[in-house]
Amino acid sequence: MATTMDLRPWVQTNGSKIILYVWDGLGGIPYGPGGKTELGTAKTPNADRLLGQASCGLLEPVYPGITPGSGPGHLALFGYDPVEYQIGRGALEAVGVGFDFREGDVAARLNFCTLDAAGIITDRRAGRIPTDESKLVVAKLQQAVKEVDGVEVFWTPVKEHRALMVLRGKGLSDLLEDTDPQKEGVAPLAVKPRDKSEGAVSSAKIAQKVLAQAMKAIAGEKKANGILARGFAKRPHWPTMEERFGVRAAVVAGTPMYRGVAKLVGMEALPATNEIARDVESLAAAWDKYDFFFIHYKHTDKAGEDGDFEAKVHYIEEADSGLPALEKLRPDVLIVTADHSTPVAMKGHSWHPVPALLAARTARPDGVQKFCEFNCKTGSLGLRPSMYLMPLALAHAGRLAKFGA
Amino acid sequence: MATTMDLRPWVQTNGSKIILYVWDGLGGIPYGPGGKTELGTAKTPNADRLLGQASCGLLEPVYPGITPGSGPGHLALFGYDPVEYQIGRGALEAVGVGFDFREGDVAARLNFCTLDAAGIITDRRAGRIPTDESKLVVAKLQQAVKEVDGVEVFWTPVKEHRALMVLRGKGLSDLLEDTDPQKEGVAPLAVKPRDKSEGAVSSAKIAQKVLAQAMKAIAGEKKANGILARGFAKRPHWPTMEERFGVRAAVVAGTPMYRGVAKLVGMEALPATNEIARDVESLAAAWDKYDFFFIHYKHTDKAGEDGDFEAKVHYIEEADSGLPALEKLRPDVLIVTADHSTPVAMKGHSWHPVPALLAARTARPDGVQKFCEFNCKTGSLGLRPSMYLMPLALAHAGRLAKFGA
Repeated sequence: MATTMDLRPWVQTNGSKIILYVWDGLGGIPYGPGGKTELGTAKTPNADRLLGQASCGLLEPVYPGITPGSGPGHLALFGYDPVEYQIGRGALEAVGVGFDFREGDVAARLNFCTLDAAGIITDRRAGRIPTDESKLVVAKLQQAVKEVDGVEVFWTPVKEHRALMVLRGKGLSDLLEDTDPQKEGVAPLAVKPRDKSEGAVSSAKIAQKVLAQAMKAIAGEKKANGILARGFAKRPHWPTMEERFGVRAAVVAGTPMYRGVAKLVGMEALPATNEIARDVESLAAAWDKYDFFFIHYKHTDKAGEDGDFEAKVHYIEEADSGLPALEKLRPDVLIVTADHSTPVAMKGHSWHPVPALLAARTARPDGVQKFCEFNCKTGSLGLRPSMYLMPLALAHAGRLAKFGA
Repeated sequence: MATTMDLRPWVQTNGSKIILYVWDGLGGIPYGPGGKTELGTAKTPNADRLLGQASCGLLEPVYPGITPGSGPGHLALFGYDPVEYQIGRGALEAVGVGFDFREGDVAARLNFCTLDAAGIITDRRAGRIPTDESKLVVAKLQQAVKEVDGVEVFWTPVKEHRALMVLRGKGLSDLLEDTDPQKEGVAPLAVKPRDKSEGAVSSAKIAQKVLAQAMKAIAGEKKANGILARGFAKRPHWPTMEERFGVRAAVVAGTPMYRGVAKLVGMEALPATNEIARDVESLAAAWDKYDFFFIHYKHTDKAGEDGDFEAKVHYIEEADSGLPALEKLRPDVLIVTADHSTPVAMKGHSWHPVPALLAARTARPDGVQKFCEFNCKTGSLGLRPSMYLMPLALAHAGRLAKFGA
């Protein structure tokens, strides 16, 4: 694995602006008519025009062959080695939904599930109940379980069958195993400590007690009568992008998860809707206040996960339509890339390197006409770990001083 | 950053010869007529002919996005990770001018500057006085300040407004801050210690006393009546190229800085003039005595820094004209590359990867016709850190044994 270099001695500020525009899950593999990828098929006149002043390349999010989740894929783009900066799912969710997630709190991501009379899981996602229905279940939990053994308990709805649980108290540990057995036909697991430390052992007992009381409170539900807890985690304390790179950074992302990971590296959240035209407006409205903007386009990933080639092509074209308004802001560096590939042919995230273009006055253009995996393969940025994108962005924006005499 | 591998267990000697021909600042970005780079525009028939038996590629000197100074750019080409092997400017200059720079000495690079009656800097480079004029000022210093508090002081002219100061005595430390405030309109800074160690504190006092006496001695000068000291440094003790790679190495470089960095890795300096035909003759005259030759061509970088596209093209062509005489020596490996890019469009060093060709009987040629960034981008050497060039050179010269059974 490549290592992270501490750039602080070379970081300088110069008023330049960088936009990182992430088309989630953009990368693909050939599929459908003509054996082209989704991006190779989509009409992307705006990205293609940017190629005239852009270097392109392929970014490998984590490590060769490693398929990243949303957290690591984005952290790498922000310049954080995702192997070094790991975060539990619970912490990501807590920050993402805007919960007041404090030092020492332990969060877990919950999935409501359906249990039969014997307590056996019959549906790990409780029939993917709609968010409104889920909110009512969460409201019951909020009423029923507020405190256990001196530990405060907070319940927050997320989306569909998903919710968030946060424990707040002294000496809590997040070294706790998931209770999700990852299959149906068995009962939820008990919360087990990951080591024999006092904090882990006592926290496991408390979490187990909390979940038992909670399941009792919703036992009457038809679908969401069980709870599976995953990714117990505390809030990590990481150096911010401002500390590491000297940029005041903002995020425009309509989905809590992406806002969450951006906040963990110190980005401030701007209003976002997941409608690209409105999200670009939100970014533009804050143009003077920040140096670095991360704007997230979600729908491409969803279409990839759904295995819907036409939809993914359509959404890539919609993402492309957001570019002119971003260009109008005259950023010094405008990057289009992705957190990971989500090939339609695979209906899920994959390890395949993602296409990237970095447009700047200081770029070395590659003479290619179409933004696609094939052309990015021969681009000046080469094939490299995603975490190197950020130093390159800073360099192209004139934000890194000379190294050595 | 990639890590350096210890090659010693595999190094073998076989009488083969390697030439590393550095065209300083060669890399560029598109500019001028046709939107080509400097190298893409220049006629380089000799380098192009070498491509028939060469692998080409792009080398990244230090780290993605990092712009190297001359020291790190060259150290990387010599196979030394420039992040691991860092050196102060003073030490580089001392070795470069051929000063008898001993263990324990502390060197600083000086810039003569112009001070007004109140001691305020009005010109940080003393009107870039010519070298002959500068030598007279240095002669005054040599007369006036020879010893302070038992510490010997040496003054050496360098070029134009630049000079070298070396302190020799017991217990000296180089943990001293620059006195150059990096701007005009203020007075030179006092020498401050970088930490509270006894050596640093007392060395700062001595250096300050030396500089005060020196400025008194040249107070009557019209232009060079002040001194700014930068890069206090001791001579580093690094393993030589012979120790690391088993090659007896020599340098042909007309400019002190490049000779200096080469000497730090154990190269012996051959006569050099910065006239390529004569420098190649100097190399040829020592052909039997060494295994590895670093020959440096300076003018390309200067033209890049001057922002003069035509001049850079011209000097690239002149550098190319040096190749036939080198080929006549029948080296086993002949490399043409650069320490860093100096795009005319940027008038300074940059982070852009540099083109490289490695000609050898054992090379895997790339079927390209012109030596340029665009073609190197798709070459067999790939895009990789410059410090990997040296192991590749050794391999192509048959100087690395098999790894494992």
